[in-house]
Amino acid sequence: MDIGTLQDRAVDLRRMFHRVPEVGFTEFITTYEIYIVLKEMDFTLSIGGEAISREHRYGVPDQETIEASRHRASEYGVPEEFLEKMADGTTGLVAVLDTGRPGPHIAMRSDIDGLPIMEAEDAPHAPAAGGYRSLHEGEMHACGHDGHISIGLAVAAYINQNQDQLSGRFTLIFQPAEEGGRGARSIVEKGWLDDVDYFMSGHLGINEHEAGTISATTDQFLASTKLDVSFKGKSAHSGVEPNEGKNALLAAASASLHLHSIARHRDGATRVNVGTLNAGSGRNVVADHSELKMETRGETNALNDYMLSEAERILKASALLYDVEYGTEFMGNAIGAECDEEWMDIIKTANRAGGNGIKVMDVMPLKASEDVTYMIDHVQKNEGLATFMIFASPLAAGHHHPSFDFDEQAIRTAVSVYTSIILHLANIHLEKENTSYE
Amino acid sequence: MDIGTLQDRAVDLRRMFHRVPEVGFTEFITTYEIYIVLKEMDFTLSIGGEAISREHRYGVPDQETIEASRHRASEYGVPEEFLEKMADGTTGLVAVLDTGRPGPHIAMRSDIDGLPIMEAEDAPHAPAAGGYRSLHEGEMHACGHDGHISIGLAVAAYINQNQDQLSGRFTLIFQPAEEGGRGARSIVEKGWLDDVDYFMSGHLGINEHEAGTISATTDQFLASTKLDVSFKGKSAHSGVEPNEGKNALLAAASASLHLHSIARHRDGATRVNVGTLNAGSGRNVVADHSELKMETRGETNALNDYMLSEAERILKASALLYDVEYGTEFMGNAIGAECDEEWMDIIKTANRAGGNGIKVMDVMPLKASEDVTYMIDHVQKNEGLATFMIFASPLAAGHHHPSFDFDEQAIRTAVSVYTSIILHLANIHLEKENTSYE
Amino acid sequence: MDIGTLQDRAVDLRRMFHRVPEVGFTEFITTYEIYIVLKEMDFTLSIGGEAISREHRYGVPDQETIEASRHRASEYGVPEEFLEKMADGTTGLVAVLDTGRPGPHIAMRSDIDGLPIMEAEDAPHAPAAGGYRSLHEGEMHACGHDGHISIGLAVAAYINQNQDQLSGRFTLIFQPAEEGGRGARSIVEKGWLDDVDYFMSGHLGINEHEAGTISATTDQFLASTKLDVSFKGKSAHSGVEPNEGKNALLAAASASLHLHSIARHRDGATRVNVGTLNAGSGRNVVADHSELKMETRGETNALNDYMLSEAERILKASALLYDVEYGTEFMGNAIGAECDEEWMDIIKTANRAGGNGIKVMDVMPLKASEDVTYMIDHVQKNEGLATFMIFASPLAAGHHHPSFDFDEQAIRTAVSVYTSIILHLANIHLEKENTSYE
Amino acid sequence: MDIGTLQDRAVDLRRMFHRVPEVGFTEFITTYEIYIVLKEMDFTLSIGGEAISREHRYGVPDQETIEASRHRASEYGVPEEFLEKMADGTTGLVAVLDTGRPGPHIAMRSDIDGLPIMEAEDAPHAPAAGGYRSLHEGEMHACGHDGHISIGLAVAAYINQNQDQLSGRFTLIFQPAEEGGRGARSIVEKGWLDDVDYFMSGHLGINEHEAGTISATTDQFLASTKLDVSFKGKSAHSGVEPNEGKNALLAAASASLHLHSIARHRDGATRVNVGTLNAGSGRNVVADHSELKMETRGETNALNDYMLSEAERILKASALLYDVEYGTEFMGNAIGAECDEEWMDIIKTANRAGGNGIKVMDVMPLKASEDVTYMIDHVQKNEGLATFMIFASPLAAGHHHPSFDFDEQAIRTAVSVYTSIILHLANIHLEKENTSYE
Repeated sequence: MDIGTLQDRAVDLRRMFHRVPEVGFTEFITTYEIYIVLKEMDFTLSIGGEAISREHRYGVPDQETIEASRHRASEYGVPEEFLEKMADGTTGLVAVLDTGRPGPHIAMRSDIDGLPIMEAEDAPHAPAAGGYRSLHEGEMHACGHDGHISIGLAVAAYINQNQDQLSGRFTLIFQPAEEGGRGARSIVEKGWLDDVDYFMSGHLGINEHEAGTISATTDQFLASTKLDVSFKGKSAHSGVEPNEGKNALLAAASASLHLHSIARHRDGATRVNVGTLNAGSGRNVVADHSELKMETRGETNALNDYMLSEAERILKASALLYDVEYGTEFMGNAIGAECDEEWMDIIKTANRAGGNGIKVMDVMPLKASEDVTYMIDHVQKNEGLATFMIFASPLAAGHHHPSFDFDEQAIRTAVSVYTSIILHLANIHLEKENTSYE
Repeated sequence: MDIGTLQDRAVDLRRMFHRVPEVGFTEFITTYEIYIVLKEMDFTLSIGGEAISREHRYGVPDQETIEASRHRASEYGVPEEFLEKMADGTTGLVAVLDTGRPGPHIAMRSDIDGLPIMEAEDAPHAPAAGGYRSLHEGEMHACGHDGHISIGLAVAAYINQNQDQLSGRFTLIFQPAEEGGRGARSIVEKGWLDDVDYFMSGHLGINEHEAGTISATTDQFLASTKLDVSFKGKSAHSGVEPNEGKNALLAAASASLHLHSIARHRDGATRVNVGTLNAGSGRNVVADHSELKMETRGETNALNDYMLSEAERILKASALLYDVEYGTEFMGNAIGAECDEEWMDIIKTANRAGGNGIKVMDVMPLKASEDVTYMIDHVQKNEGLATFMIFASPLAAGHHHPSFDFDEQAIRTAVSVYTSIILHLANIHLEKENTSYE
Repeated sequence: MDIGTLQDRAVDLRRMFHRVPEVGFTEFITTYEIYIVLKEMDFTLSIGGEAISREHRYGVPDQETIEASRHRASEYGVPEEFLEKMADGTTGLVAVLDTGRPGPHIAMRSDIDGLPIMEAEDAPHAPAAGGYRSLHEGEMHACGHDGHISIGLAVAAYINQNQDQLSGRFTLIFQPAEEGGRGARSIVEKGWLDDVDYFMSGHLGINEHEAGTISATTDQFLASTKLDVSFKGKSAHSGVEPNEGKNALLAAASASLHLHSIARHRDGATRVNVGTLNAGSGRNVVADHSELKMETRGETNALNDYMLSEAERILKASALLYDVEYGTEFMGNAIGAECDEEWMDIIKTANRAGGNGIKVMDVMPLKASEDVTYMIDHVQKNEGLATFMIFASPLAAGHHHPSFDFDEQAIRTAVSVYTSIILHLANIHLEKENTSYE
Repeated sequence: MDIGTLQDRAVDLRRMFHRVPEVGFTEFITTYEIYIVLKEMDFTLSIGGEAISREHRYGVPDQETIEASRHRASEYGVPEEFLEKMADGTTGLVAVLDTGRPGPHIAMRSDIDGLPIMEAEDAPHAPAAGGYRSLHEGEMHACGHDGHISIGLAVAAYINQNQDQLSGRFTLIFQPAEEGGRGARSIVEKGWLDDVDYFMSGHLGINEHEAGTISATTDQFLASTKLDVSFKGKSAHSGVEPNEGKNALLAAASASLHLHSIARHRDGATRVNVGTLNAGSGRNVVADHSELKMETRGETNALNDYMLSEAERILKASALLYDVEYGTEFMGNAIGAECDEEWMDIIKTANRAGGNGIKVMDVMPLKASEDVTYMIDHVQKNEGLATFMIFASPLAAGHHHPSFDFDEQAIRTAVSVYTSIILHLANIHLEKENTSYE
């Protein structure tokens, strides 16, 4: 297959994956479909519990949710023995191909999970108009991970097909549960990245330039912490004896307001969000329980720590305000990170060689959180070079929106970029400077 | 059957009904079991849509909830043709017996719905220990309506058995959906109470005196209004562009706090409660929707109006605070009312005649809302006399609590009281002054 | 002087006192003017520190405020040696007259302080139209204490003039600082009421019946606690480093909102008010200090305790919310109390004898706090009989309003009532039953 | 005088000015003392109303405050005829010297106002230890403007002394009321900057490097708007009839909380601060009025507009929450601005020539608001070059803190920098390229 064919196939696969979104740690169908594509190639595949560290997952869904998704996957046709490899939501897959020739160890990461969002049904939304809207009501690929998977599979095909021209070793990571910063650490702890020389990853969309424009590196990763909070009060009949209640609903309401008023910080951007609040069981009962899903972010780890520390005090005080008990559960994390500037040259050079007309910018801001930062950090600690690229695209609606969509041309661009980098870094005809990998 | 046998049977029935609680407008099994008992007697029975005015119901559950309960009832064994009579949640039943002799029209109301509360499972809770805990997880007779039904059925048996001794006409109302003030008006509008001379109703528990103590009348009915509130904002990625969101979660949180701070009123007791708050769809998304279930109350209609008017302004302002839209839906109502003082003498006299050792107090406070007030008001407008008695009992835990329970002796007391009143008011040997009913 | 002349003079004096209102513990001019009237009579006068217990005063103003008022009094013409007797704000006066004849010890209390309110200047306000508006800008007799003083002085004149007809002993108390519940205990602790048989007091206005209607007793005294609260945070430049501040303004704001949302209580009326909030020193500085003046109330002491205990927790939590320190200072108190029902007969009988056409009701509600309750409680503990009457009047505007005013006819009524009671209880021609006072 | 002597004198003058701080538009003594120094030189002086545009002042204090300061100045010894020139708070002074030789028009701005802060009294605070603590209780030079004045006067002395060596024209602006962004526009509108070629200004402190380090330009000026907000409700007795009040204190409290929770913005730093809140008149009265002093800021004018627009909606909603009226008054403004990069070279070159060992950095962030931006903007529109330098210094405590102080060495540095720039730009021996000024 030439690059054009790989690109066409990536777009087709993207649409296929778009129809079966699965939220983090329930990617049973997704993992299986990735496997189906890869099993025809020469990669060694580690599936589910072989790919990720079970105990380093954050924010694993409850058993009921996992079971429901597993059941759905079973009905979809995923074989039982395959599902067994992903017991208890240990989803994801890692594919390794060793050329046998000395050369760099290159790793690439694609994240594979969807979001708990009901996809738009109206015609201007291309997946709806084009017949590839989500088949899973209430779940949606609203952040482009369907594209990331298909790009990863196209790169796999490229490596497989051109393995005779390449040196070194390739590790392709299909990571579960990026949303909420829950899956990356379970990959890192499994050791896949311990001796990586070049680590590549990236995201579709983010900055709305025309498709064909990419950024070699990203800055402004927001460190982030995800918490579930619960307040436990005491119910009472709201008409007869309101004074007997301890109001967990108001504790959650007050906590939400005060969390959103944490003072801005001199040193840079910070964020806080209470994304969901659920409280109470009946109209005429003082609410005896409430739950928040919240997160903090900061432009640096220190700024996120500031937000988290303020948040923790506010949660404690909000419980005291209403004389209720509270608890917090850690549900996910992303750290800050910095891409290596060397990638600016590597990618520009690789693309010039490719002659594909892609416009490479040095750096774009993310202004969001990504648990790829765990991987970047780990690779850099082991003296590898790591980057997170941005494959820009105009967006029909923002990330995480029911009408989110991107220009599929950006998939083609990404396939070109990744393959040109691989050719640049791992070509067997590489000159002396790469002999250091021998 | 003598009174003792009727009382024993009432206690048995109470335990049977306790096992199958159904929330308002889903009392399919309950209505059917009432029917099963009554169909052996000489009453004319109006079932479901024959008993209540479909369009005067408040706060009807959504179709899905109704269907689930109907399905459960079908599996329980309620025949399809019987379920048809309660289509779309038109539950409840009215039983009429006319002696054919001139005499008063006496009506009695029993409310039959349960609550959406998970019943306690631990041994000190008598229904758990005694094996008659709710079979419907998440629903519970936590307000004594199971007892009310069984008292109503015992009174029916008494009338049926003693009809030769009685004059006038009897209307026994088994009203659905008292909780939330949703069912009474649908009875009133059907006309059952248009020419009633004596209207009797009552409640178990409420004031914790020893069982055997009752109150002939009740005061301090709280007028009440039930509202569902929804806020509609705009979602946005909370990390990338928090300013783009319009936060419906915070609007609901702020509304809740401010609703609970409505100023107390010079003229008497007021109440407000936001019982449930549900908002948002994801941790890292600015919440674009939220819903509240709330209520206001006042010792008088004017005081409830004050609370409602303050609440409406606060809801509007809370929406403006966060630039979101909002809507309110009226879900139920109870008005204030006053019992007729004549009942103090009637009941004392009737009980003295009965010689059953019951201690009758003139009046006790309710300090809660009851939609029986619609019935009281309607009867009084047509020059009938109406009361709402209290059959006191020590309580294991307050009304609407998972461990709520009462002394079943209070059921026996109530059966004695109602039957002695009937005998007193409708005995065929009554003297001349009752000939006015001819 | 006949009663009519006494009444005329009381109205004149009321207008005089209306012009020189002084807030609690700064009643230098007021005490002096009371002295001027009384010194012509046969009472023994105890002034300032001789009348009240310096250390049992609550909420004494700061030295600066006291000094300013003292200076004003000095300029007004109060002699320095008289001011010396009221050093540090020990204002007020007690007048005693002993007839030398055996008989009851009758005490009467008049409160003498004004309020920190700017009086209305517009014509419909009678004091403005009539030329007796407050001369002290920002201070006002907006609660009728000007009338209370003048009634007390008229009663003094009556006793003085009729002392040959009277038996027993009379103690007339001119109490400072009733507002805020700050002065009564300082009278009680001085022992004036230790052996009182009959304790009389009362209030103008309150219930808006026509002047000429009074209530023999009062119920619904609200127990109350007055607190000053301060929060101490840390200032920071709000633009450069907002995160460095600890925001005492927001702590006070949040405390205020949450105090006003303390749940209503099953057992009766409760109140809370944050009356003043002052915070911060500059627009672009994170506020490092804030102060609240607040109060709680309850229909019973237990209800006030409930409110106070909730308030204390909320203050602590509000400080924690913003990581600031806080302190509370106790500034005043009023307890609940009950008038003796014997007064209903005493006053009706006395007034019938007086034949003055006054309409005496048994009881009216106060629905407010009054530190006279300390006196009532103390008298009753020593087996005396105590009451607090209401001298009803239509009001131009509510108590504590800039346009507050009452019908001066109510002053005349009060003079009639008090003097008729005295004549009834202490007439030398009284029969044997009073010999118990020997 | 050589530079060393000028520097010594600047330090002395700084201490003199430190003792007599005056808040914006009351700088009567300050303006006079500036005049005293300058009148010995060859500058043409415009004083008070001659220097600033009366109607373009923002946030002028009330008449009482102005009168009190004027009175204080009069007692200090400022002659009446001099005070007349500053009628109604038209303070400030502009000094112009024209060399008569063709050359650039160079302007320099020094801001002269103090802050309403009580200065620290304890020994580690150098002004307290050194005997030059503020003589005006409650006012303080806590932002270094005392230093700015003395630097301006040293530069004036330098120009005056070296006028024979210099070409072009010099305009030295002593601007009142920088704090709160209130005075700059009144200078601009008077036309002083209409044809300026080089505009220099700067600030002591800000970034805590060792004294001797300066920044040639500044970025991150925060655009800012200053508002006074008042809420007007209705008072009522908080015990008797709390429902009759309309609570302006709670409206202000709620507004404050919600203002501080305006969502952060994607595009950059924003700020909001409610610096002062004053509400209510008595503990037991529902507060009928409240006042806020607040400000918004943004890294760009658009970001400040976002904050302001959110704030305005929140203020409206907060009034609606409590059914009170509100009003806002515009009290000051600062816009965003950018310094001209040409100054980096100019200043480095000038300092190298001076050989004074000063370390010049290109740019430092301000992260605060400065109304000098009005001047920068105006100069640039007329094609002049403008900068705002930073004369770094370690700080004993942050700007606007009661213990604020800086290393006086920074004054010496600033004098060196300004004078070296003047020599560089306006030396009569300048080469051809400057003949464009002819």
